Amino acid sequence: MTTQQLHEQVLKKKSFLCIGLDVDLNKIPQHLLATEDPIFEFNKAIIDATHDLCVAYKPNTAFFEAYGLKGWIALEKTINYLNHKHPEHFTIADAKRGDIGNTSAMYAKAFLQDLNFDSITVAPYMGKDSVEPFLAVKNKFTILLALTSNEGAFDFQTKKVDGVELYKTVLETSRTWNNSENLMYVVGATKAEYFTEIRKIIPDSFILVPGVGAQGGSLQEVCKYGMNSTVGLLVNSSRGIIYASNSEDFAVKARKEALKIQQEMEVILNK
Amino acid sequence: MTTQQLHEQVLKKKSFLCIGLDVDLNKIPQHLLATEDPIFEFNKAIIDATHDLCVAYKPNTAFFEAYGLKGWIALEKTINYLNHKHPEHFTIADAKRGDIGNTSAMYAKAFLQDLNFDSITVAPYMGKDSVEPFLAVKNKFTILLALTSNEGAFDFQTKKVDGVELYKTVLETSRTWNNSENLMYVVGATKAEYFTEIRKIIPDSFILVPGVGAQGGSLQEVCKYGMNSTVGLLVNSSRGIIYASNSEDFAVKARKEALKIQQEMEVILNK
Repeated sequence: MTTQQLHEQVLKKKSFLCIGLDVDLNKIPQHLLATEDPIFEFNKAIIDATHDLCVAYKPNTAFFEAYGLKGWIALEKTINYLNHKHPEHFTIADAKRGDIGNTSAMYAKAFLQDLNFDSITVAPYMGKDSVEPFLAVKNKFTILLALTSNEGAFDFQTKKVDGVELYKTVLETSRTWNNSENLMYVVGATKAEYFTEIRKIIPDSFILVPGVGAQGGSLQEVCKYGMNSTVGLLVNSSRGIIYASNSEDFAVKARKEALKIQQEMEVILNK
Repeated sequence: MTTQQLHEQVLKKKSFLCIGLDVDLNKIPQHLLATEDPIFEFNKAIIDATHDLCVAYKPNTAFFEAYGLKGWIALEKTINYLNHKHPEHFTIADAKRGDIGNTSAMYAKAFLQDLNFDSITVAPYMGKDSVEPFLAVKNKFTILLALTSNEGAFDFQTKKVDGVELYKTVLETSRTWNNSENLMYVVGATKAEYFTEIRKIIPDSFILVPGVGAQGGSLQEVCKYGMNSTVGLLVNSSRGIIYASNSEDFAVKARKEALKIQQEMEVILNK
């Protein structure tokens, strides 16, 4: 998928919602535990109930790896289901990987080629040669952690490196890397006031924005400071949508929560 | 395993060698490809041929995830083989994970509890609450990336944050986190001249040192500046040992390479 196609989907659906698939077997409806693959059945039901309201899905690999082999099978089934049934959705492997070059190339193979995700989240700490193997994959996107939604973001990301905050140094430096046109960035919704400065450095890039919902970020604030002429935002909600109910009506309730956000986005887009 | 037990193993074996299990099906002997699980068969042969010469094994998760489900099965079999057959070895999941708190907790469950690795490598970019869930697991170790062996380490890690290099800030800050006694650190062998400064901040911690061998780091230099009174080093070699030959004699040749390093370590330890 190209960013232009993603933008078209946003306009068509009046939504820039990304739904995070963070499946915790302790939180899903109990009746699903009797099925052969509760993780996939849960994801499938969530996707079936919400696909017209969002433009992206973001399975977080931790929640699959936590269930070992069964989790990996569920991850494969989930991305295959998305790619075959809903190819118009932008898919994000929220994996936060990053290693020396030959190793990052193996992660790129795993997620962007074999599993065929449209994109993967990557941590910047190890620098250029740890990120470029992801950027080298054609027609795929690397979503680099810049300013994350958690409290720990203030430990290093906002510290000044030669007078400039580390996350800004990451943004600026990453633009010099090979195939940097394949970069998107993670900026947390809990840091909305930072978006103005961030847009000065990356005016045109898509930004994946976690932290709306359970983590307390404001959609209005994020849009006010972060939106660009092609929208340029994918706002993620995970727990607030997928765990709206843990009863048999979970998919209906998830749709209701997703609809609330989509309608709020539609109002913003119509302005 | 405690650090005291690890130190005892180092003295007993006269070795602080860690062998990295980075299995690339394009590089292993062709005859193994006919077996049901070439990745595990390769690892098993390498382990059987080298276990008396090293104190740790470090499977890098990228090289397993790159083979999807089969890779995950091979990872499970490899760690189970190590835990049952060679419980005296320190095991490292070289995964370089790190995410918001509830997500890092899932990774900690996956690698430190379910797979039962002794330790996992973690990236520091997201700060305290992304690392503490790993540190919370009792009798396990979190090996934090500090100064990595690759060229990209100079992009951010060596940049000055309020006058102090980022990797030093990471080292210093991490010591204030809950259960920081469970921390070890990654410092690349290609950065041997930095070890003196690093030892001022973390005099007692174990340091995992990749980059000897294929990446060009010097064992002598690393030991000169990085060793402490309880050795405090795990020096890793991956490709230099496991791909010493891609013929049927691969395990014999791997042992030969491991022996070379172990003997060099024995001379250093006897000094």
